[in-house]
Parts: sequence; C-alpha cells; structure tokens
Amino acid sequence: RYLASDAKSKSNDQTNISVDVSQKQKIYITDPISPGSIFFLPNGTKVFNKLVQFIKLQTTQLFGFKEVITPLIYKKSLWETSGHWQNYQDDMFQVAVNDESKEIYGLKPMNCPGHCVIYKRFDRSYNELPLRFADFSPLHRNEASGALSGLTRLRKFHQDDGHIFCTPEQVYQEIQNCLKLIDLCYTKIFKFTNTDESTTEPYFLKLSTRPEDHYIGDIKVWDHAETILKNVLEESGKNWELNPGDGAFYGPKIDIMVNDHNNKSHQVATIQLDFQLPERFDLKFKDKDNYYKRPIMIHRAAFGSVERFMSILLDSNNGNWPFWLNPKQVIILPINTKKEDHVNESFKLKNFLSNNNQTTDNDIQPIPLNSFHFEAHVDDRSEPLGYRIKDAILNKYSYLIIIGDEEVKTNKYSIRTYNDRNIEHLTSAEIFDKFKTLEENYK
Amino acid sequence: RYLASDAKSKSNDQTNISVDVSQKQKIYITDPISPGSIFFLPNGTKVFNKLVQFIKLQTTQLFGFKEVITPLIYKKSLWETSGHWQNYQDDMFQVAVNDESKEIYGLKPMNCPGHCVIYKRFDRSYNELPLRFADFSPLHRNEASGALSGLTRLRKFHQDDGHIFCTPEQVYQEIQNCLKLIDLCYTKIFKFTNTDESTTEPYFLKLSTRPEDHYIGDIKVWDHAETILKNVLEESGKNWELNPGDGAFYGPKIDIMVNDHNNKSHQVATIQLDFQLPERFDLKFKDKDNYYKRPIMIHRAAFGSVERFMSILLDSNNGNWPFWLNPKQVIILPINTKKEDHVNESFKLKNFLSNNNQTTDNDIQPIPLNSFHFEAHVDDRSEPLGYRIKDAILNKYSYLIIIGDEEVKTNKYSIRTYNDRNIEHLTSAEIFDKFKTLEENYK
Ligand SMILES: [Zn+2]
Ligand SMILES: [Zn+2]
Repeated sequence: RYLASDAKSKSNDQTNISVDVSQKQKIYITDPISPGSIFFLPNGTKVFNKLVQFIKLQTTQLFGFKEVITPLIYKKSLWETSGHWQNYQDDMFQVAVNDESKEIYGLKPMNCPGHCVIYKRFDRSYNELPLRFADFSPLHRNEASGALSGLTRLRKFHQDDGHIFCTPEQVYQEIQNCLKLIDLCYTKIFKFTNTDESTTEPYFLKLSTRPEDHYIGDIKVWDHAETILKNVLEESGKNWELNPGDGAFYGPKIDIMVNDHNNKSHQVATIQLDFQLPERFDLKFKDKDNYYKRPIMIHRAAFGSVERFMSILLDSNNGNWPFWLNPKQVIILPINTKKEDHVNESFKLKNFLSNNNQTTDNDIQPIPLNSFHFEAHVDDRSEPLGYRIKDAILNKYSYLIIIGDEEVKTNKYSIRTYNDRNIEHLTSAEIFDKFKTLEENYK
Repeated sequence: RYLASDAKSKSNDQTNISVDVSQKQKIYITDPISPGSIFFLPNGTKVFNKLVQFIKLQTTQLFGFKEVITPLIYKKSLWETSGHWQNYQDDMFQVAVNDESKEIYGLKPMNCPGHCVIYKRFDRSYNELPLRFADFSPLHRNEASGALSGLTRLRKFHQDDGHIFCTPEQVYQEIQNCLKLIDLCYTKIFKFTNTDESTTEPYFLKLSTRPEDHYIGDIKVWDHAETILKNVLEESGKNWELNPGDGAFYGPKIDIMVNDHNNKSHQVATIQLDFQLPERFDLKFKDKDNYYKRPIMIHRAAFGSVERFMSILLDSNNGNWPFWLNPKQVIILPINTKKEDHVNESFKLKNFLSNNNQTTDNDIQPIPLNSFHFEAHVDDRSEPLGYRIKDAILNKYSYLIIIGDEEVKTNKYSIRTYNDRNIEHLTSAEIFDKFKTLEENYK
C-alpha cells in the first residue's frame, strides 16, 4: 500500500496531530516519572469513559459478553503455563512481593490467562458455551522507552478485551458476531477519514494465516480454522485481503484496519482463534454425550487499545469531537455581560442542561442512575460577543447558545453549531431533548 | 465499645457471611495464583460497577469532582518525594523495568502523589480552587499473606478516591460538603443494620487529632485545623466522638463508621486534612494578590475500599440485594412449562425487560447510551411451579413474575417480590417503568 519510509513519516504526522490537539484540549499529559503511562486529565477521562461506556453496552447487551474484573499481578507459574514467561518475558514488568514465598509476579500484559483461571474454576457444561468474558483492565507492556509515543505506543493501556470459550461448531457464528460488532462500530458510530480513492469501505480486513515455520498444532486443524475464517469473510461481503503466514503461532487471525487522514492504515480491531491456551490450561467442558472436551478460545477486541483508538479518533477529527464525546459540548453566551438578566438566564440554562440542580442545600437528593448531564459552560467575560463567538468556535464547542433580551423574554434560546451559522430557536426542554437524542445515538 | 477478643470473633463472623453469600451468588473467587486479588465474576462485577456508577455520579455532578485516570507505576523518586519510600516501603510492591535506566518503580498504594503531579503541571490560579480530582484506580498494598481475608483485607483493591486542593479559607466548606456526600450515602442509599440500642444514628463519626509525638508541622496550624473539623462536626448535628492523638502524622482526620449485624463497627468513609504533601511537592497557586501560596490538600473517600464496602453490604443484607444492585433482579416463571404460549410469553417479557432486542438480525442498531437493562431470567425447567417459586426465593430474586393463561390473554402479568406474597397485575411497560424508577432512585 505504501513505502515503509512513507509510513514512518506519516505515522509521526498522525502522532503530531493527536498530541497537538490533546495539548490544546487538555486531554492528557505524560511525565518522566512514569514513561509510557498516560495521565488522563478531566477532559480526556470524559472521552475515555464514554468510549468504554459505549463498547460495554454493545458487548454485554447485544453480544452476550459478561464483564469480569481480574487481578493485575499473577505468580510466575501462571505465565509459565500460558507460555508468556518463555515467549514474552522481556515485555513484561516483574513485581517483587516481600513475603515468605519470595515468588516473582508478573504485571499482566494480557487478560487471557486470568480468564482461563475463571473458566477453569467451575465444572463447565456444553450448555454454558459460548461463554464470553469482557474485561477493561489496565495492561502493562515493557516497551522500550525510545519507542514510546503519544497515545499509540504505551507501557500502560486498556483494551476493550474479550475472550470467547466455545465448541468447534460455534466458532463460525461467534466470528460472525465479532464482525457484526466491528461493523457496527466502524460504519455506524466511528467514521474515519477515508481518502483512499480505490474503495469506499470505511474499514478493511486482513486474514493472517499459519506461519511457515513457527506454529503449533495440527495442519489439518489450521486448515479447518482458516477455511472457517475465509467463509465468514466471504459471507460478510466486505473487502478483505490475505496476509499469508502472518498469523499468531497459536492460530490464524483477522485484523481490522482503518485509515487516518493521510491514508495510512492502523490496526484497530482483532479476532484471533486460539487452540493453544485451552490446551495449556487444560480447559474442558462436559458435552451432551457426557465426555469432557476441549473448548476453542477466541480473543477479540473492537477498539483494540482504547488509548490508541483515541489517538486515531483525534487524528481523524482534528479535535472536532462529535457531540456525545465532546468534553466541551455547549457554551452559553450572554449578549451583554453587563446586563444582569442576560447573565442570570445564561447560568440558569447552564444549570438546567447540567441537570444537577438541587432545590434546597440541606436536603440533597441523589443524582439518578443513567441520567444525562451535558457539559455546558458560560462565557460571561466582558468581551464583545463576536470575540467570544470566535473563541467558542476555536475551542470547538459543539453548540453555541446566545442569550439576549429576546431570549430572556420568550424563553426560547438561539442555538447554532460551531460550524454552521444557521440558528434554531428552542426552549430549554427542547435543547435538553435534542442533546439527549444526540448522546443516546452516539452522534 | 466491645472487648478485643469479642471484636475478633465478630470480625470472622462478618467475613464468613460475606464469603458464604459470595460463594452462593457467584460474586467472586480468589486463587493462590494471585493472593489478595479478587476475581470478580459477572455477578460481582455488576454490583461493583453499579456502586462505582452511583458514587461517580454523585461526586462529579453534585460535588464538583473531576475524574482523572492516572498511572499505576511510578519511579522510586516520586515515592521519595511523597515520603512513601521512607515510611511505607514494606507495604509497596516494587516493579522492575528492563530498560537502560534500571530504575525501580513502585506499584501505587495510593493516588495522592499522582494527583499532585497533575496539580503541579499547570500554573494554578486561586480561581481554579477548590480543585477536586476523583480517581478509581486499582491500588496495591503488600498485606502479609496470613492477614488476607475475604473482601476486607486485600492486596489489590479500589477506592472511590478523591483529593481536594483548596485555600485555607475553603477548608471548612469543603469538609462540610464531604460530610454531606457521606450523609447522602449512609442515610439515603445504604442503610446498614444498626443493632446498637444506644443510638438510632445510621453511622457515627470519629475525630482523630494530633499524635503526641510523631507529627509534622506547627502546633498552631494543627490546633486551627482541629478547631475547623470540630466546628463542622458540631454544626452537622451528628454523633461524633473524639479520638485524641490518633490522627495521621500529617494532619487530623474524620473517620466514618457503620455497624454490621453483630454491632461491630467498620470504618468506611474518611476525610483527612493534609499539610504535608503540598509542601513536599511544592504545590502553589497564584492568589488574588499575585503572590504564590500553598494550597491545603484533603483526602477523602465515601466508600473507602469498594471491595470492603461490598463486604459490609453483604454482611448487612445477607444476600438480599436491593433491586438496583441485585445481579438477579427478576425471574419469570411460566406456570405450565409444557404450554408453548406460557413459555413464549415468558421469553418475550424477558427480552422486553432486558431491553436489548433487535428487530432484524442484519441491521444491528446500537444500544443507546444510559439505557436501562434489567437482569431478567426465565425458569422454564419442567418442575412444578411451587418448586420453582421456592427456588427463586432461595436465589433471592427481587421480583417473581408468573405467566399463565390469564397473563397471555390480558398481557397483564402477575408480579410479586421475593419476600411478599402480595401480587400486582401490571403490563410489561408498567413493569419496566417500575424497575426504572427503582434503579434511578437506588432502591
Ligand atoms: Zn487474549
Ligand atoms: Zn490520598
């Protein structure tokens, strides 16, 4: 698709945009006290939490995943069982515990072994499968300090991670469902810049097959698995390309790629078939015929690293967040900041949209579960309205609301988007409903 | 209040109840592969997430906290600045990073130093104060393996942590607000068993003052701070007792205690004044007079450890969760499991209450943000209705819905609680609204 050197310079460019916007919008900071770990500032935390909220709802409510919370440190012996100690040790942080056992722990780089521990704890029956665990734990990988960059190459990051334990017969359907979630994400919710004129697809798929030399397991099982993946890909009707020999040593995989504004592709989602971990952990389920059999494991993520996903979003939107993700959703501008009623009305509206008002100070009522609260700010600096409008646009507020005599009198407010001068006149309740609909639908 | 030996046996009893219920309800497991770290199973994760959702909404929307996400590992030098390396080293996990610096990292036992790093990064002005950070990071403390117990003594846990940076003049108001949040939690939402006949208060407060010997800072500053705390406590009108000399070495504190069903008291919330960390990190703000001054730091949590809080909840409710927290909210029982319409109607209602239905399989619509999804199960085992009702009650479902000919005909369903035989007849929409109101109000 592109030359390697080209890719490198484009990669820097992508990092620069997201770093630049992040700095302007106070999304995050980094500090040499913890290289490769992000300090998400309040604005970045809002974006991060909304993304996780979105993906949690889809995975648990649409695709039958059950969220679990698992430990971050595990004894060396777990990593020996999983094979990480032999194959991944240099990338793992070791943790020393000052107790009699003197055992070494590893700070987890992946959630899979922990999910195997949960699977194995109970006697599993065929009617529990497919069993799907979701996990949003922080993960740590010891990237070289020179390789650390923005939100893309980190030592600490989060995945929208999931593992499916299923029978061989269920694999096809499960992979298909993984692709459905991915399609939902990348065609309905997150639309990345696609400047590649050869296609109108918002994303493309790569199938990576059995490596020539280093692989484990039976060729027949590999062939069967690859055939399943090919069939699912064919049936999906999506663009996909073959990446022969690039699979993981434990199984073939599908990677999902999106393009940034420079047409450089980035891997986001991934779906990996795994025959090895169930073997290594000796996982079983009791089948209908009462025999214990080996489940197959699927590793999958729709965002991949949430941090890297944010970076690609930032590159793509250049700081123009959709309303639901915007840490600066709406700014309210009193026309004349010397007029008390303009300013008061502005703050009244801000409180209404923030939806956290209390009637009396001494009998506090709890904020209801699942309620909507919009990020509304008032700019009542004694600057001309034109200046403040310009500033609001520079600050990329999704909506601007302007309040003057007419608005105070009619209780209908003038509202516009940052990039469209068209003005609507709406009541506070109508604005709230408009915003609610936008958030509900991830717009 | 009680003899030490008594307290010990009661403590075991509390642990036993919560461990016992947790096992029955599949709340969590532990494993020697990671002693002191909890594997929250899907049911436990639901409870954990709901608790965090509740407290996040209150702290951010009612009390002006801004959530941040901060690193888990920091170089030794941070812990030297904060004083943890000198005073807390044995309780910290050390992390080895395999890079050229060969520097040792500490896995964080507290969030405070990370919040100081964020505070210090920007030039702070008086008009940014009070600045309040909330953080739900996993924390690690190296408890001796013999001391580990249930959900109460852990090596990995989460706090509903918060730090307030403010001026000396703001301390009074901030402490008052901390107490308001605590009062909201422990009188309106979480009502613990109180078998202590000497009081009807749902919780009580302890003021711990300057230690005799080991303290830092000026006695005058201590006296002033203790006077503030006393005044706030007096004005609150709540029961409180003095705990002379039991403050932290860096400042006085208020601890909030609740009683378990054995009348043993447990610390939940805490509010700590801190003059030391701002000094150690050389934190400043530019005051109105353009001089840089030192802010005061307040550490506070309403739950304390979320895990320990869950344990006290479990002890108190003995597995009878309020509806909003119950991982088993409602069970639907077809009267005659051989009648297709009874069973179909049951699954139709389950899907309606789960609220994750899709009209067509091929055009998936995203699940809306902040939508309600109730945990509804169908018991269509071919067992007599009476047996299944008994089982549902044993399993502590909040609600039982029974579906027979009448219900299929009228679309009004018979619904009762697990502990009350009174039956209401409601449509599916009425049931949904009833459940929504319960969840919204944390009932
Ligand atoms: Zn995995
Ligand atoms: Zn603290």
